[in-house]
Amino acid sequence: MTARDPADVFTRDCPSRATVENVSGKWGILALVALHEGAFRFSALRRRVDGVSERMLSQTLHALERDGLVIRDVRSTIPPHVEYSLTTLGSDMAKRLKAMIDLIEGSMEEILEARREYDSRAGG
Amino acid sequence: MTARDPADVFTRDCPSRATVENVSGKWGILALVALHEGAFRFSALRRRVDGVSERMLSQTLHALERDGLVIRDVRSTIPPHVEYSLTTLGSDMAKRLKAMIDLIEGSMEEILEARREYDSRAGG
Repeated sequence: MTARDPADVFTRDCPSRATVENVSGKWGILALVALHEGAFRFSALRRRVDGVSERMLSQTLHALERDGLVIRDVRSTIPPHVEYSLTTLGSDMAKRLKAMIDLIEGSMEEILEARREYDSRAGG
Repeated sequence: MTARDPADVFTRDCPSRATVENVSGKWGILALVALHEGAFRFSALRRRVDGVSERMLSQTLHALERDGLVIRDVRSTIPPHVEYSLTTLGSDMAKRLKAMIDLIEGSMEEILEARREYDSRAGG
């Protein structure tokens, strides 16, 4: 990507596509929004993001760390203590994702009604 | 879900999780943000969302329609003309997703730099 060639998520080969995938997907969104509440150790974050496997959460955090959204802080205590938190960019991203999550949570009655209507049309 | 039991995306069995999956995921996000630009016929939308297969776009649009975010409008012309557009809720969701996409596109230099740094640490 150069100044002549700005990022465009609609273009197949733009590297911004990979970031869209990392911050999207259920686990990326939930991990970022959870970390927006504060720093977490791995096991506590896994409890917060109910249902995520150890492997999926670990992959998700690595991808977010690689994109500069999450900081993995290893404290040299005994035993070592690893804590995850957001960078400034990660925090800004989490704020925007939280706005989306809030809308979904606040619209569930409407969404469930739409699903019922759709399913009754599809079935009938 | 009842009034006593509000939606919580962090809870494994909450139906809001399915909506998070539908509006997230690369193709859900890109379809919603594209439709925020205006109504599209299927083939035009597929060209706009560069790289999506016919099957994936079709599945994505059905899931978004079922959640009450997208309207599928069949005009009884010859040949029939099918147009996709956003509901009010879909439009509100697309606005919030667009804010996230804008941040990603505007931060690509920073994200690419973070990736280079991460990969050089991982490799060294």
